[in-house]
Amino acid sequence: MSLRLTVSAAVLALAAFASSAAQADEGMWTFDNFPTATVNAKYGTDIDQRGWTACAARPSVCPAGCSASVVSGQGLVLTNHHCVVSCVQDLSDAENDYVQNGWMPAAREQERQCPGVQAQILTEITDVTDQVLTAGAGLEGAAFVQARNAVSRAIQEEACGDDDTRTCQVISFYRGGRFALYEYRNYSDVRLAFAPEFQAAFFGGDPDNFNYPRYALDAAFLRLYENGQVVETPNHLTWNPAPPTEGEPVFVAGNPGSTSRLLTVAQLENLRDQQIPVSQLQRSELRGRLIAFGERGEEQERVALDTLFGVENSFKAFYGQQLALNDGDFMGTKREQEAELRAAVAADPALAERIGDPWTELETVQSSVEELYLPYRQLESAAGGGSTLYSYARAIVRAAREGAKPAGERLPEYASETGLTNLRRRLADGTPVSSELDQLLLGFWLSKTREYLTTDNAAVQTLLGNESPEGLAERLATGTTLTDPAVRTALFDGGLAAVEASTDPMIQFVLRTEGLGREPRAQWEQRVSAPTGQAAERIAQARFAVYGDSQYPDATFSLRLSYGAVEGWSYRGVDVPPMTYIGGLYERATGAEPYNLASRWAEAEGRVNHETVYDFVSTNDIIGGNSGSPVINARGEVIGAAFDGNIHSLGGAFGYDGELNRTVSVSTAAVTEALRNVYRLPHLLEELGVE
Amino acid sequence: MSLRLTVSAAVLALAAFASSAAQADEGMWTFDNFPTATVNAKYGTDIDQRGWTACAARPSVCPAGCSASVVSGQGLVLTNHHCVVSCVQDLSDAENDYVQNGWMPAAREQERQCPGVQAQILTEITDVTDQVLTAGAGLEGAAFVQARNAVSRAIQEEACGDDDTRTCQVISFYRGGRFALYEYRNYSDVRLAFAPEFQAAFFGGDPDNFNYPRYALDAAFLRLYENGQVVETPNHLTWNPAPPTEGEPVFVAGNPGSTSRLLTVAQLENLRDQQIPVSQLQRSELRGRLIAFGERGEEQERVALDTLFGVENSFKAFYGQQLALNDGDFMGTKREQEAELRAAVAADPALAERIGDPWTELETVQSSVEELYLPYRQLESAAGGGSTLYSYARAIVRAAREGAKPAGERLPEYASETGLTNLRRRLADGTPVSSELDQLLLGFWLSKTREYLTTDNAAVQTLLGNESPEGLAERLATGTTLTDPAVRTALFDGGLAAVEASTDPMIQFVLRTEGLGREPRAQWEQRVSAPTGQAAERIAQARFAVYGDSQYPDATFSLRLSYGAVEGWSYRGVDVPPMTYIGGLYERATGAEPYNLASRWAEAEGRVNHETVYDFVSTNDIIGGNSGSPVINARGEVIGAAFDGNIHSLGGAFGYDGELNRTVSVSTAAVTEALRNVYRLPHLLEELGVE
Repeated sequence: MSLRLTVSAAVLALAAFASSAAQADEGMWTFDNFPTATVNAKYGTDIDQRGWTACAARPSVCPAGCSASVVSGQGLVLTNHHCVVSCVQDLSDAENDYVQNGWMPAAREQERQCPGVQAQILTEITDVTDQVLTAGAGLEGAAFVQARNAVSRAIQEEACGDDDTRTCQVISFYRGGRFALYEYRNYSDVRLAFAPEFQAAFFGGDPDNFNYPRYALDAAFLRLYENGQVVETPNHLTWNPAPPTEGEPVFVAGNPGSTSRLLTVAQLENLRDQQIPVSQLQRSELRGRLIAFGERGEEQERVALDTLFGVENSFKAFYGQQLALNDGDFMGTKREQEAELRAAVAADPALAERIGDPWTELETVQSSVEELYLPYRQLESAAGGGSTLYSYARAIVRAAREGAKPAGERLPEYASETGLTNLRRRLADGTPVSSELDQLLLGFWLSKTREYLTTDNAAVQTLLGNESPEGLAERLATGTTLTDPAVRTALFDGGLAAVEASTDPMIQFVLRTEGLGREPRAQWEQRVSAPTGQAAERIAQARFAVYGDSQYPDATFSLRLSYGAVEGWSYRGVDVPPMTYIGGLYERATGAEPYNLASRWAEAEGRVNHETVYDFVSTNDIIGGNSGSPVINARGEVIGAAFDGNIHSLGGAFGYDGELNRTVSVSTAAVTEALRNVYRLPHLLEELGVE
Repeated sequence: MSLRLTVSAAVLALAAFASSAAQADEGMWTFDNFPTATVNAKYGTDIDQRGWTACAARPSVCPAGCSASVVSGQGLVLTNHHCVVSCVQDLSDAENDYVQNGWMPAAREQERQCPGVQAQILTEITDVTDQVLTAGAGLEGAAFVQARNAVSRAIQEEACGDDDTRTCQVISFYRGGRFALYEYRNYSDVRLAFAPEFQAAFFGGDPDNFNYPRYALDAAFLRLYENGQVVETPNHLTWNPAPPTEGEPVFVAGNPGSTSRLLTVAQLENLRDQQIPVSQLQRSELRGRLIAFGERGEEQERVALDTLFGVENSFKAFYGQQLALNDGDFMGTKREQEAELRAAVAADPALAERIGDPWTELETVQSSVEELYLPYRQLESAAGGGSTLYSYARAIVRAAREGAKPAGERLPEYASETGLTNLRRRLADGTPVSSELDQLLLGFWLSKTREYLTTDNAAVQTLLGNESPEGLAERLATGTTLTDPAVRTALFDGGLAAVEASTDPMIQFVLRTEGLGREPRAQWEQRVSAPTGQAAERIAQARFAVYGDSQYPDATFSLRLSYGAVEGWSYRGVDVPPMTYIGGLYERATGAEPYNLASRWAEAEGRVNHETVYDFVSTNDIIGGNSGSPVINARGEVIGAAFDGNIHSLGGAFGYDGELNRTVSVSTAAVTEALRNVYRLPHLLEELGVE
């Protein structure tokens, strides 16, 4: 398993400090276009653009991705526990369960490498808009796409060459309105320096996830190594163990993954009425099945844990999104904003001529979405229902079939050498697969596919033949030998002939049925993705023409900075205060899961300072991907790590509401207190500059 | 278990016959206000109002209620298999599983009584609008309600007295616009004459439920007895074994349960955005848990079957409702209709003065709904999550607490002697309860209550104390002795002192927590139910003033008649033909559940006529409660029994769409063919007049 971390070493040249204000703290700004003047005016700060240096990365495996920051001169990196839990699990074995017991070596020498984890530090941003736009000028369709891709590759290669200690990436902002080259320094030897117990980090479990108050030590430390040596990082954030104060201005630097704030009302309505509800109803039933599966026994509970966590996390995230989309005021604002932009475009004949009417085009696209969404989802985008064995089989079969075609005609994921190399690596990976869990996932997918497409659908009849979803899933999951990495790589290396000769039931099933998803996918790409992309680009151009870069671009997993203040909120007459205290943990602990204390915390109750601020909320505008981001005060010191949003912040996918959206962070005060009085790790305290 | 059936003996005096037409066949009409002229004009029929005699009833247990018809002179009643399946189960024992094997005695003498099943035949309808309106004139609030209730009771008592062979009921139509006295003849000795195998009746199971094409013999026969003798029923429907023909006009007489077609747009939007989504997400997860529970073993599958069926049926019903509410055209029509009515009211100053602005009032009420729905649902209306043991405990505790108050201050369900007598009967009922299933339901309810109200909610903290939802549910379900009817009745009879002295954990839990639902309930009644009822009554009056009784009233489980034609439909380019044939059953049967054949059908494959029409659809406007309704041709003969709607018909809760909404019926042709060549029951064929 590989987890690419983003490391952010941000230094703020700053000065004073001020009271909070009522204006909305909206935006996930690029570092080179941060609204410094606005922030300074609002918060009375004196921030200087110079001095921000930072880094970013895209996640390769972790669906949400993560952020982090360097907090000592010896490469110490602060992030969330939930960003490193896979590593903790990888370091564990039958005798040593570090997920349950925590990983807390007493000295640096005992830190162990996280397999597959990479860290990247952003070193430089260069505007390359002109080069990219010039390359595509006058071209259309495929030629246009190819020319742009070619110039981007050229820029990247020129900057990075084949230096694998660096990554260069041309990123599109404002959906094609701006392009920039982001250069990163890579670190591939990342070691685990500290991880608390799962129960301390995720106290309150799913019931508290995306809720607040929280009492979670969702923090961990990694360390950067290179050539067996600790990486010197003089340009690090200063650790400030003092608690935040109410109203204090704070900055969050990290990699918000993906927002959809520029979607039109028609697109939002389809999400609200079709895509989110259908996926949520299926997710909800799957959740029930997984919970009941876990109740069969300890081993089942263990193998289903990751999948269940992912399902519950997504369930709540989409629940929050649906809440926003179902809110009349929220959609009303969206309608007004759209009408305003359309009016501004209409008022400028040259602009109107250039932009056309992408809003109406997108309305039309929604009828294609309505028609195509279910078959595309069930037969292609969600085919296999998350079964690992199915996904192996599909990758093997498709790689073989696509490999037999000229490169230009292949599905893109099977067209590049890099893609195929990564795929082979994945197939060779020895992580054990639970056939029992896979059987559940596969049976669930088949059963829902029949339910949503109906028994009379020809594709459903091809999928099932004369079998029931449950019977077919059992036959495939128990009969396949794809649990063995050697079998997988042999099939992959053997190509189409080997695959077609295979008697493995999963391979045979996929040979017979993977084609069912190709037509819905082609239809979806042609009638949804392509016209949506084209219309969205023109809307982005319209926004850029009307508002310039006084607006921030949608999140794209590149480094962003948001500003805000430490502040609670009110909802339906309930006031939620901004901070929790360690004492509250002990009051909340009932002893019953997930409200049971980690044993070290129970033991430390009399020792630890109950008045210490534990977690806190602020008005910063963040989204999934920001996990692990440093929360920085106006002096440029780190005072927390963002790890969650409140339930309202989930609507932030579509728009920020300053009254309700809140970032949830664990304070450096709590981490310091825990290192001192719960875990007793003086070497880390010393390194952080805390006596 | 008691199942009250509706028996309808409808005779049509009629004549000719005609082609189908394009106009929508909307409406669930009362027999005394059927749009005879419209129908005769559209279908070229010559129906005469005289001669319709019929009957109706409300269901007491079966959530959907059922309809039926008398089809011989010896009290033979046609209804659906799914309306009698509880009776079939009650007649079964460990050695004789009639649900699986069917119940098909070779002679009338072997027919056995269905415990608790009652049938009612409507004998008379009398308009009592003037009496009821006069009684309430000039009064307001509680006095108004009491005066109306008093006059209704007086009318009923005058008509029926204490003759328990008759039921008299004053029914409100058009939400208070009209009142009528419905008189029924009761039959309490109802015997099971024929029920096919579950697998024949429900072939295709949940995947086919509310879908089409269907191949289901969802039919059964009951027989009315009185004083040990068969009831003579000379005024019965004639059984016509001929198949329906495409375009043929057909009438469906039965008891549509409940529609909400007069809801305002604001009310529909809340249902769409809050109430249906929240309940569906919970239902979906529960479905997953129940399915996985059933996979633990045969006994678990058996005890969860009913609950799972109910959950899946509701899930699909609400899925269909949501589909309609999410349809922009559908809601657009609703908006237009509302605007039209509001404009008509505004144009008539006297009317506007009398009606006021109930639409705006209902908009305001929706913010109370938004605020109160979750606590009201989780703590009161859905408290216990369907756990039978919890519901026993709550009834016992509340009866004791309410019994200690003056009658006028009690919760209405504990205020009347009849109510308390019925409750005691329910508590004394010996039907076995599965503690294991109850534990699941209780744990699920507690867990969702915590999820939706959050851990920080005071009521949640009272409910759970220091326990987890799962731990608490286990303690209650395994520790309670309420599985024993004697324990329940002793507590009930012992009153508050006995209940408070009980050490039963479930009783103690309910004593400690049932109060949590009382405040949300009081709030809901005061801020939602009461203002909604008042506004709805004025909207109904407005509709009545503007449109008169050219409109049909919302369904209320009273007897209605709908008209239509045998006709398929088209959706997204797919044409669905109106009829299926017995041959199609054999083509559809894969052998895998739920597409496996009942053994008698497998054995009869070579004998049965494959060309026989099996099921068919028609444009009749029906809703849950219509199950078992006779489908009557223009000559007044029964040619089928309605048992389902297509997925689009589920939106019929809010409005009828003649293009898409379809009633699904099993043909008398198929029933006849099955009696002749599958089940070989000549005595029934002879009784039905079929050679």
